Amino acid sequence: MEELIRYGEKFFDELEIAVYRSKDVSASVELNEISMASTRSGALTIIRGIKDKRLGLAIVDSDEPPRIMEAIEQAAKMARLNSPDEKWVSLPEPGKYREGPKPNYELKDASPDGLVEMLVRGIKLAREKDEHVVVAGGEGGVSWEERHIVNSHGVDVSQEGGAAFLFLELVGRKGDVVTPGIFDFDAKRSLDLDVEGVVERAVQKVKWAYSVKASKNEEVPIILGPWAIAGLFSYALFPAFSGERLVKETTPLAGKVGEKIASDVLTIYDDPFHELSIQPVIADGEGVPTRKNVLIEKGTFKGFVWDNYWAKVHGTESTGNGKRDIRSGGINIGFHSMVIENGKRPLEEVIAEIEHGYFVDGFQGAHSSNPDNGNFAVTANPAFLIEDGEVVGSSVFLIAGNVYELLKSATEVTKEQTVMPFMTTIITPFVKFENVKIAGK
Amino acid sequence: MEELIRYGEKFFDELEIAVYRSKDVSASVELNEISMASTRSGALTIIRGIKDKRLGLAIVDSDEPPRIMEAIEQAAKMARLNSPDEKWVSLPEPGKYREGPKPNYELKDASPDGLVEMLVRGIKLAREKDEHVVVAGGEGGVSWEERHIVNSHGVDVSQEGGAAFLFLELVGRKGDVVTPGIFDFDAKRSLDLDVEGVVERAVQKVKWAYSVKASKNEEVPIILGPWAIAGLFSYALFPAFSGERLVKETTPLAGKVGEKIASDVLTIYDDPFHELSIQPVIADGEGVPTRKNVLIEKGTFKGFVWDNYWAKVHGTESTGNGKRDIRSGGINIGFHSMVIENGKRPLEEVIAEIEHGYFVDGFQGAHSSNPDNGNFAVTANPAFLIEDGEVVGSSVFLIAGNVYELLKSATEVTKEQTVMPFMTTIITPFVKFENVKIAGK
Repeated sequence: MEELIRYGEKFFDELEIAVYRSKDVSASVELNEISMASTRSGALTIIRGIKDKRLGLAIVDSDEPPRIMEAIEQAAKMARLNSPDEKWVSLPEPGKYREGPKPNYELKDASPDGLVEMLVRGIKLAREKDEHVVVAGGEGGVSWEERHIVNSHGVDVSQEGGAAFLFLELVGRKGDVVTPGIFDFDAKRSLDLDVEGVVERAVQKVKWAYSVKASKNEEVPIILGPWAIAGLFSYALFPAFSGERLVKETTPLAGKVGEKIASDVLTIYDDPFHELSIQPVIADGEGVPTRKNVLIEKGTFKGFVWDNYWAKVHGTESTGNGKRDIRSGGINIGFHSMVIENGKRPLEEVIAEIEHGYFVDGFQGAHSSNPDNGNFAVTANPAFLIEDGEVVGSSVFLIAGNVYELLKSATEVTKEQTVMPFMTTIITPFVKFENVKIAGK
Repeated sequence: MEELIRYGEKFFDELEIAVYRSKDVSASVELNEISMASTRSGALTIIRGIKDKRLGLAIVDSDEPPRIMEAIEQAAKMARLNSPDEKWVSLPEPGKYREGPKPNYELKDASPDGLVEMLVRGIKLAREKDEHVVVAGGEGGVSWEERHIVNSHGVDVSQEGGAAFLFLELVGRKGDVVTPGIFDFDAKRSLDLDVEGVVERAVQKVKWAYSVKASKNEEVPIILGPWAIAGLFSYALFPAFSGERLVKETTPLAGKVGEKIASDVLTIYDDPFHELSIQPVIADGEGVPTRKNVLIEKGTFKGFVWDNYWAKVHGTESTGNGKRDIRSGGINIGFHSMVIENGKRPLEEVIAEIEHGYFVDGFQGAHSSNPDNGNFAVTANPAFLIEDGEVVGSSVFLIAGNVYELLKSATEVTKEQTVMPFMTTIITPFVKFENVKIAGK
């Protein structure tokens, strides 16, 4: 890599070479049968070079030096044709990395066969537990990634690791009732996925869903589950923590560092080293050391996160939140492993205290939330009605609100903490909110 | 491949091996600058094997025999774990292929440099023509694909070919007006893309968009452009032609073969060999010969299209419309190159006769259309107001309607025919519809 950097310096004032090697195995379910098993692997090199503040960016799906040299030349041609970016300062300088957890090498050699067997076990178990259930869909996957990032200022960092995930979608048909698709999932840094737990939780939710209850306009306590939280926060809240949005004046959190923006029970941070993290990276996409960045501490907003570019534009330092977009090759501000700190009591106890309210498993329409102001309008589906401390059926309703008002109404976080591997990866308890306005549907 | 089929026959009653080799080069634009150039290539082999009506499907990203043999074994293990599909009949038998157009080999060796230069020329031209214009986004790409499909019944077909495409998104800022994103595009089986035409058409539409006009509830003639037609028809109409939907009773066209479902001016067919086609395939994803399939002839519905599986379930023959989904490995009913037959007069003349109406360039929200009944609700944006035979400004409005009612109100198709390479590939003229109910916004 050293030689390639020297080669690139003939064309550029500074440059970065990022090599990604990956292996992904997966297997899918459709209508109670295994529909596909796949093995994919590959290498990708991304060149980012700057000459007179002009950017060149080239991607090539190879890690072989002659192909990388071609990509360097392509990036150089592009840089000559682009205009200078007067805001450009420089690529990152070397930093000190923490020692991360050891990778689990069994993930590197995973085969789809193991996933197929796991899914077959899940399908069998689900249908044994409830004969009215169809496993409508599902997937098991294992990803392994090796990253090597070097730049002409001396950054040189290699890391590798993997994770496994599983999700199942169940639909129950009983009498005239067809339940909505009911999801559950598991993800961790080992092949020891909790198939039994996924099935048990999903079947329990299907059972609740057989009893359909009307919803009406009212103010009620609601408990949000991991999938609902990940959906809503990924679109309505997390983008507001981005330093780029502070510079561009598109975050409602500008000027609010140190202010109370949520209830005391909420502490939210980004921490790739959390014990449940499925991607414990020591460096971000441009080689900056990662760290634990607290965003909300007991309700108080603690600050923004930055990548190298926007940090330097703003006159601050990268917080290690430059995430590589493998498709475009570019760096965007993002999160490695968001964590909502958990509490002391289990979900069961929290439900047991609710006289009338809902437990919301998933939201539809969260992607159209507005992170500029936190407004959202979502459909809670599936949502489960709680009466006198017990779940008694399922329902659908709308919530149109503002995520910051919601944050202030949080009153408890449960002891359970779940890794939600889709959208922004988030490790979260169930969270209870009071007096949420819902509209019956 | 012969040997691999023989190897697979140890495990399966019948099997199919499909090998795809591809090369894609592309370059992107963001805010007047080239943001990325990329080169990606790869091979993918998909095994579909059936044993006692049990399906096994494995994907491996390689075309090397030892990896393919592993995939065959994986598919075999999967088949053993699956239940029989009692509807399964058999894989396709060999057929006779037409002679296709010669591939253009300059597309095989295309480099991103040529695309970067083309995009830079497009950016420069757009900004020369209108200093208030920002080229917000865009992409140029060249794809090359080689496919080899064999099965144990003797199907053995190879084909190769490529296409190039270009699109630009312009935004105009003039005084207080910021126009919506205005798109234009070109696609063909050569590198000779019409950059000047794309820029000219996009800049013209931006000029119209500077003058914002209110819309109101009324019934008006509207002309739909290629992007609007591709969006609406891909979601609201084309799925209804699928034989799978006939079997599953989810198409409103059941029992309507030979009936009038559209106005006389509309003739719609799927023809991979149309002179403007960007993918003139001789065989579909499972090796069945392609052909010209007429769907609507002068307003009369002519019949459904089929892949091998659903045709045999229904007791008919595949029409060569089995399309491979590279991600899931499966075959779905789809189209190669939809064509709406063109007319005699240019768009300009058709516009010149409209006293009061709209030319709609794009629809938003078409993906939520319901192909079960043809209902849709879309936002026309950008839409251009026509007064006394001339475009005088731009507007936004809603149309909630039914695609079959719309088809009956078509009165003219223009002479121009454009390849729209996104969503379902469609080669289409501009189409005029009368008395369309719109809701002002």
